[in-house]
Amino acid sequence: MKVAWAGSRHAVDVADRMARLVASDPVFRKDNRTMLSRQDLFKDTLRKAAHAWKRIVELRLTEEEANLLRLYVDQPGYVDLHWGMFVPAIKGQGTEQQQQKWLPLAYKFQIIGCYAQTELGHGSNVQGLETTATFDPKTDEFVIHSPTLTSSKWWPGGLGKASTHAVVYARLITEGKDYGIHGFIVQLRSLEDHSPLPGVTLGDIGGKFGSGAYNSMDNGVLRFDHVRIPRDQMLMRLSQVTREGKYVHSDVPKQLLYGTMVFVRQSIVADASKALSRAVCIAVRYSAIRKQFGSQDGGPETQVLNYKTQQSRLFPLLASAYAFRFVGDWLNWLYTDVTQKLEAKDFSTLQEAHACTAGLKAVTTSATADAIEECRKLCGGHGYLNSSGLPELFAVYVPACTYEGDNIVLLLQVARILMKTVSQLASGKQPVGTMAYMGRVQYLMQSKCAVNRAEDWLNPAAIQEAFEARALRMAVNCAQNVNQAANQEDGFYERSPDLLEAAVAHIQLIIVTKFIEKVQQDIPGHGVKGQLQNLCNVYALYILHKHLGDFLATGCITPKQGALANEQRGKLYTQVRPNAVALVDAFNYTDHYLGSVLGRYDGNVYPALYEEAWKDPLNETVVPEGYHQYLRPLLKQQLLSARL
Amino acid sequence: MKVAWAGSRHAVDVADRMARLVASDPVFRKDNRTMLSRQDLFKDTLRKAAHAWKRIVELRLTEEEANLLRLYVDQPGYVDLHWGMFVPAIKGQGTEQQQQKWLPLAYKFQIIGCYAQTELGHGSNVQGLETTATFDPKTDEFVIHSPTLTSSKWWPGGLGKASTHAVVYARLITEGKDYGIHGFIVQLRSLEDHSPLPGVTLGDIGGKFGSGAYNSMDNGVLRFDHVRIPRDQMLMRLSQVTREGKYVHSDVPKQLLYGTMVFVRQSIVADASKALSRAVCIAVRYSAIRKQFGSQDGGPETQVLNYKTQQSRLFPLLASAYAFRFVGDWLNWLYTDVTQKLEAKDFSTLQEAHACTAGLKAVTTSATADAIEECRKLCGGHGYLNSSGLPELFAVYVPACTYEGDNIVLLLQVARILMKTVSQLASGKQPVGTMAYMGRVQYLMQSKCAVNRAEDWLNPAAIQEAFEARALRMAVNCAQNVNQAANQEDGFYERSPDLLEAAVAHIQLIIVTKFIEKVQQDIPGHGVKGQLQNLCNVYALYILHKHLGDFLATGCITPKQGALANEQRGKLYTQVRPNAVALVDAFNYTDHYLGSVLGRYDGNVYPALYEEAWKDPLNETVVPEGYHQYLRPLLKQQLLSARL
Repeated sequence: MKVAWAGSRHAVDVADRMARLVASDPVFRKDNRTMLSRQDLFKDTLRKAAHAWKRIVELRLTEEEANLLRLYVDQPGYVDLHWGMFVPAIKGQGTEQQQQKWLPLAYKFQIIGCYAQTELGHGSNVQGLETTATFDPKTDEFVIHSPTLTSSKWWPGGLGKASTHAVVYARLITEGKDYGIHGFIVQLRSLEDHSPLPGVTLGDIGGKFGSGAYNSMDNGVLRFDHVRIPRDQMLMRLSQVTREGKYVHSDVPKQLLYGTMVFVRQSIVADASKALSRAVCIAVRYSAIRKQFGSQDGGPETQVLNYKTQQSRLFPLLASAYAFRFVGDWLNWLYTDVTQKLEAKDFSTLQEAHACTAGLKAVTTSATADAIEECRKLCGGHGYLNSSGLPELFAVYVPACTYEGDNIVLLLQVARILMKTVSQLASGKQPVGTMAYMGRVQYLMQSKCAVNRAEDWLNPAAIQEAFEARALRMAVNCAQNVNQAANQEDGFYERSPDLLEAAVAHIQLIIVTKFIEKVQQDIPGHGVKGQLQNLCNVYALYILHKHLGDFLATGCITPKQGALANEQRGKLYTQVRPNAVALVDAFNYTDHYLGSVLGRYDGNVYPALYEEAWKDPLNETVVPEGYHQYLRPLLKQQLLSARL
Repeated sequence: MKVAWAGSRHAVDVADRMARLVASDPVFRKDNRTMLSRQDLFKDTLRKAAHAWKRIVELRLTEEEANLLRLYVDQPGYVDLHWGMFVPAIKGQGTEQQQQKWLPLAYKFQIIGCYAQTELGHGSNVQGLETTATFDPKTDEFVIHSPTLTSSKWWPGGLGKASTHAVVYARLITEGKDYGIHGFIVQLRSLEDHSPLPGVTLGDIGGKFGSGAYNSMDNGVLRFDHVRIPRDQMLMRLSQVTREGKYVHSDVPKQLLYGTMVFVRQSIVADASKALSRAVCIAVRYSAIRKQFGSQDGGPETQVLNYKTQQSRLFPLLASAYAFRFVGDWLNWLYTDVTQKLEAKDFSTLQEAHACTAGLKAVTTSATADAIEECRKLCGGHGYLNSSGLPELFAVYVPACTYEGDNIVLLLQVARILMKTVSQLASGKQPVGTMAYMGRVQYLMQSKCAVNRAEDWLNPAAIQEAFEARALRMAVNCAQNVNQAANQEDGFYERSPDLLEAAVAHIQLIIVTKFIEKVQQDIPGHGVKGQLQNLCNVYALYILHKHLGDFLATGCITPKQGALANEQRGKLYTQVRPNAVALVDAFNYTDHYLGSVLGRYDGNVYPALYEEAWKDPLNETVVPEGYHQYLRPLLKQQLLSARL
């Protein structure tokens, strides 16, 4: 199962090696993270980043190994943005010449870069950004300026304290005309003493959700007071400003930028399965240790994992972790496919690929955020302790629902493409890829689910068709309602809550389909395939139950068939139960990476919880600081004369 | 609307006075709370508690005023447990004599008490506690002992550092026999120097979810090594141990203890409406300020609050805040009613009252926890900043789902009572109170929803009947399935996930019913009643949509009627929109209590966000600590020779 999860024997081995490398190095300890002050936590991030880089260079790690090492260091910091956004932006939007100049500096960390797009008053709507980059033909420079308070750059990771450079997005103005948002490479800090350059105001935007968590990152604020940069620091792959100040487009198609977006979002889906699998691993292991009730005669209590209520909440999340893992693998393939097609200037699948990656980003991150919190609740009271690891995992994960495209905004984009696809069906245009099923509209609008007995729901074809019919019928219903409005735009606006649901149905179909396709492949390992089939069915029937209203309202299944699905789901849980712990052990996470007393591999939970408690700073003294000032006067009835 | 929310003009006035008293007192500032170290935060709690008590005494505040003052101080601390658990435990379980001895000490704060029930290995299952209290007839004492690691008391608030005394729950053993769990008053710390008494080990259990939040509380660990207490410190109202060691029951009925449970849980429901209304207030106000998209021609962007997707997520939560407020008021009445009946030894409604309070505790706290996080997401990226107030509100609120009865365990108790009620229907026993509708089983099992047009869903009778039919049919279905099993207990266990859903349906019916009853009363104020009617319909149709599968699967409504409900819901949002800000202003929260830059009453959000950022400790220096050690060597390519 380890191989099935990791993808290959090689992937298991290299991940294992890197995880152990990190776990055994005292610099990378993270058990004290929630107790550090903001400054100490940030300093710790700087230390870990430098140490990681040192190890990467010393050990001559490959790119794959280096990425895994950073993953297991598991602490958000400026390097994430440097590698994940700054470098790709230059690669994607810089000319050959710009790449030759800037990339070697970035690769060797002679500069540290971040990605300065969002502003205090502007997030999702990139076109609304206010920062200006005005071309001055006299000096052949751009003047970068923050004209209002709301135009302050706000949120970029690594910006507040660490970065020396940024790709800054600003309205390009030349010859008195506003050409909209473009990217510019701007130096922010002196390479000699790290002080902000003249005209640049820089700071951290303050504490964020949770202790530890994302507070290791210096999300920053940045203001420009007429800061000048050379003309050649505009990223000019797609369009240029000439020496004279003329704005000209290059012949590079704009669609190329989508490649980067697909890449970033597929990595977010992969991260979702990682975060979810960590939470599920903790909850499953602790549920196998923890006992409550069930003893009528003084005998041992029942393992919590044996309770049907626990199973019905936890096993769907275990199945989701695998589902997201496999759809993430598939997205990785899609990225390669899209890249090849883009290079061949074939844009035919781009829209479908965009809908699919945007939608999967939205659905998997929302589900994961909810699932981590559910896993925390499934650990009872102790899940609320920082030592359980779950509070920090939740706090550090939830921004994934907002960054790189707010999930609601992304789902509306999916819905827009769905509506377009439906409207083109009449003209006979055949949808492609993950939308191909919509071509079978005639059949799916009136198909009848053939399930008669509970076990009929184990048939992948029955599941697949029910999910296809549901998604299609919801999309068609929406399209009909949208078309009733005076104009399409008003209709779309009015029906947007329904459109969100149709988009989710479409994306869930993709996840189910890719899981089914996965378990139809050859999968080595004794019994592995059977267990994955169970998880695939658990995932599908869980979604069917959760969205039963959709399936019934569209007439895709009958109430009786819904009840049979429910029955089958219960039986599947019983089959998953004996393998549950093995299924989370297959993630192969070290105790260091998991960071949870409740999820310890050795199950030695209670002594570890007890030991952790004494490490709290509050336990440094037996009688608390403040006793003489605030408790004793109260207890001795001397409060009214006390000076507090 | 302020009066409708608060309950009376008097309630508005006194709350207003206390809120301003707290807000204007610099000791009670809380904007820096997330930046304090654990020790400083705890010391701050001690300071605030002492100062609050000083003000209460100086100003001769009434009990109502004192409670409100503590509410607006808004920082979890030992006083919550002292007043909320220690004092009520002595009142409820202590004899007259014990009350006379201990209550005056507690009332004057000559002792500080907490409530030590849960153990490291034992939460929900009180009967599984391991701490022992063995009677020693030689000395007329009980010997309190922690025989195992898992028997360590774990979680009690105020225990770790502040309390001098505790009500400790332990297995009573006398004459070699285990009589199960009983309560004992045990002194833990010296009243002279606050050091733990001999044989007592005390500490804090460590950091919890979030920064600030519940970390102001010293949830504690406590171990006993054969600690002796006088026999008369066993709480003896219900049963006693005689001088000779005989265990005897008094003639006080055990049911009296339920009164306390109803009281505690009704206050938790009231707290749910407070927490939810704070989150909703922040999200509504900020959604009226925040603008995104919608400008096609460079004009101003659209207020986020105008988006249908925002409305369809936010307005149901606004409606829920009002729904929980009114059902909380009703529970308050129920508590009085139950108390009177208990005093008259009438136990006939006790079971129904228990189901109803336990279930309302579970449903309202779970919904509120989810809703706070949803409100945070509805504020976009900025909701993730501590200065938004929402991270701390979430982190401090979520334990309500676990303490005072884990929500799943409570819902299973509700389900058990539902199953019992269904089984008694055949014998003609008429259910009472909130279960009375189940008596109309014949009718409700085959009733048909009469809705033909969208606006028919505005008819309270249509809503009420649909909710009653859904709840009843789910309960009856469950009962049939449970009865098919070889024995009832196995059937209950197998069907427990379905039983949870039936319990939720029953409780949601109660909430809807109480909201409908509320808006059928006379409500003063221009237009107030109409707005509350809108909110009532929003709440009901939102639940109907969320659980559409239930309504369709049980045949309570048709898919067509479901679509009509959806249509009507959309229309209601349009009606709520113009009053949304006024509806949250009616909560009458000060900026101090709200604690959110995004929810400021004056709407001056962006300058305030900008200003808050600079207060972060990380901004104390422009060049971060650690630059010379960890950043400069990296940038200057001197890493391999650096000592990190």
